[in-house]
Amino acid sequence: MTQTWTNINPNLSEWKETLKQKMIGKNLSDLRTPSLVIDRTRLERNCQQLGKITTELKIKVRVHVKTHKTLEATRIQLEGAKTDAIVVSTMAEADFMINSDLVKTQLLKEVLLGFPITPDKFAEVFELSKKVPSFQIFIDSIRTFELLESYIASNNETAKVNVYMKVDCGYGRAGAPLDQDETIDLAKRLHDSSSVHFLGIYAHAGHSYASENAESALEYLQNECNAARAFRDLFAQHGIHIQNISIGATPTVKSLLRFMNDKNMTEILDGITEVHAGAYAFLDRQQVSTGLGTFDDVALSVACRVSSIYPSRGSILIDGGALAFSKDTAPQGGFGQLFTDLDRQEPVAILTKVAQEHGVVSNLDDNALSRFEIGKVVYVLPNHCCLTAACHSFYLIIEEGKDTVVDVWVPVKGW
Amino acid sequence: MTQTWTNINPNLSEWKETLKQKMIGKNLSDLRTPSLVIDRTRLERNCQQLGKITTELKIKVRVHVKTHKTLEATRIQLEGAKTDAIVVSTMAEADFMINSDLVKTQLLKEVLLGFPITPDKFAEVFELSKKVPSFQIFIDSIRTFELLESYIASNNETAKVNVYMKVDCGYGRAGAPLDQDETIDLAKRLHDSSSVHFLGIYAHAGHSYASENAESALEYLQNECNAARAFRDLFAQHGIHIQNISIGATPTVKSLLRFMNDKNMTEILDGITEVHAGAYAFLDRQQVSTGLGTFDDVALSVACRVSSIYPSRGSILIDGGALAFSKDTAPQGGFGQLFTDLDRQEPVAILTKVAQEHGVVSNLDDNALSRFEIGKVVYVLPNHCCLTAACHSFYLIIEEGKDTVVDVWVPVKGW
Repeated sequence: MTQTWTNINPNLSEWKETLKQKMIGKNLSDLRTPSLVIDRTRLERNCQQLGKITTELKIKVRVHVKTHKTLEATRIQLEGAKTDAIVVSTMAEADFMINSDLVKTQLLKEVLLGFPITPDKFAEVFELSKKVPSFQIFIDSIRTFELLESYIASNNETAKVNVYMKVDCGYGRAGAPLDQDETIDLAKRLHDSSSVHFLGIYAHAGHSYASENAESALEYLQNECNAARAFRDLFAQHGIHIQNISIGATPTVKSLLRFMNDKNMTEILDGITEVHAGAYAFLDRQQVSTGLGTFDDVALSVACRVSSIYPSRGSILIDGGALAFSKDTAPQGGFGQLFTDLDRQEPVAILTKVAQEHGVVSNLDDNALSRFEIGKVVYVLPNHCCLTAACHSFYLIIEEGKDTVVDVWVPVKGW
Repeated sequence: MTQTWTNINPNLSEWKETLKQKMIGKNLSDLRTPSLVIDRTRLERNCQQLGKITTELKIKVRVHVKTHKTLEATRIQLEGAKTDAIVVSTMAEADFMINSDLVKTQLLKEVLLGFPITPDKFAEVFELSKKVPSFQIFIDSIRTFELLESYIASNNETAKVNVYMKVDCGYGRAGAPLDQDETIDLAKRLHDSSSVHFLGIYAHAGHSYASENAESALEYLQNECNAARAFRDLFAQHGIHIQNISIGATPTVKSLLRFMNDKNMTEILDGITEVHAGAYAFLDRQQVSTGLGTFDDVALSVACRVSSIYPSRGSILIDGGALAFSKDTAPQGGFGQLFTDLDRQEPVAILTKVAQEHGVVSNLDDNALSRFEIGKVVYVLPNHCCLTAACHSFYLIIEEGKDTVVDVWVPVKGW
């Protein structure tokens, strides 16, 4: 199969310098809206919480960088969690992180591509493997493994590939299922292969995003750990002893932090060698709905301008729409929570409707309407941090809730 | 109020050249997925249909370029509709189009910013007005008009600004309402002002996207024309005679084309001077649901790879998720219609679920599953062309349903 290659705009760092020169020191209200604003203080605070898993539970943490796709936030995540391991969602992220100072300074040592590999990327897997101490991939199908073996044979590759077996612990999205003979066959073949290092299993409790409170998130965590141990035990019955079991998702990892002093977390996590999460660093309105974070913990918001006011309809128009927020929903309804300032003392209204570039805030009485003025900058906490960040080509960085830009970050896009 | 400025990555054309050199002549399956693919033949065919409004109904057409944000597709739209007028959604689009060959070669003469102006952009409005025969803005609030007058006075601006009054014809998103005194006041002040050219009124029947068939789309068209004439007549009662009435949205304009030989379109459009539309050029699964287009008319699709196959769950995983499609819904359910080839002879399955980078196609029986193979490229027609195109940094261009790349287009992003 033909090998594809990763397409990254080569001028990202140049453009970042231009943006920094123009924007650092400016007030947010002096810059074009909609703009994605990250409060670095809140981000650091969220990231430092994960360090407790490393120091107190002695379990390795792997941070997911797909939310922001920037070198700067990856560094904050690695330092906060006291780890050197990341998971990326795309080859563009892998390439960007591996060819950065993060690897040169040895802050970053393990990069896992957290999506089942396709055979058009094998050549790049071997290329990237030379550039970082451990480059790792997912396999969840015998067919992919066979294609990899055949690629290795025909290309005389001698380096071993690091492989996690992606397993399904109830989410049903990707991953090998527990109850199929093919899963045992795949584990055996990975274990016996001379061309791969079989690292262990990797699960993701994506269904835990449905948690309505901290207790139910904890239940998802327990179920995921039980499910992962069931794979481990099944494999052991077939003589396959695995070294690593990685589990996690932001709601379950947040519940782990919440209950780590109250529950016997060592028992819950028995046998688990690694926990991973990503959205925890930023949080969003959806995560607030689980009760595992507050609006004050959310590190990102979208600055928008009030573009028009319609007293007869009880609504205002803001200049952020689906291209600034995505159309992702949250249990609270609407497309984001609107605040009139960065302090977030009082939730003002809900972003009711989004079209491509239009955002409508409705159900406002005269008193509420009087708080807005055309041209005024307002801040919306979005439903989903990952999809919202993906809408923006650069992020404005502030500190401690103050409205002055201290930095500009440029994410890597594409695949 | 401080003036903001437009941020466009200055290296777009350079990057486009790099991509073109690497990709033209390649087969789609040799390139990284997910990728947005545009069939130029289908695009041209869709665009030429609008020319009939110009030649047969003698009504001016204004093409909306926000779907694709590229110079290449704008040219095809202008030539197809035999017009020199566009509407843009962002200042970034305005800047990109105005500083291009489209203006230099006089193909483009009118650029309307189709979003109520905010006062932080006034300086740029005057700048852009110098660079194109007619730069036009929306105003739908007296307060904005007062801020504009005050800006003009304090900056001694002598050029007149071209203003459309945005009116609400039932959509309830933006625009001045018919039944308020303030609407008459605004019309009077625009009409009497020495600092603006009051061009007329502009409506957008966005609610027509709810049309379930061609007849109901036609009804939306009739209602919008009636509503626009109601504004005209009300203004006339107050001595304000307007020159231009612009109406439209893709479903209503498609219904106009469908029925232009069967219904008395001259009567339906009586007094209307301009029709506008944008998504018509590309179409999508949502538009197909109205019966005003078929899958064969849709000009864009997203090429994805089959990344894994799960027989026990009756599902496959593809490498396009919410960041390749958006999470926009369509009346048919799911996130897109999957085809195994570019001919689109047979709809194969529906994209059931999307996470950030994961797409799941489920409810597949063994027969359906046997049509897929890991690494195989498949094509998904997305729910909404605008939001899907916005997910991609460049587009691969093909012709006549053939899988060879003939060009690469790079859109302008941001605000």
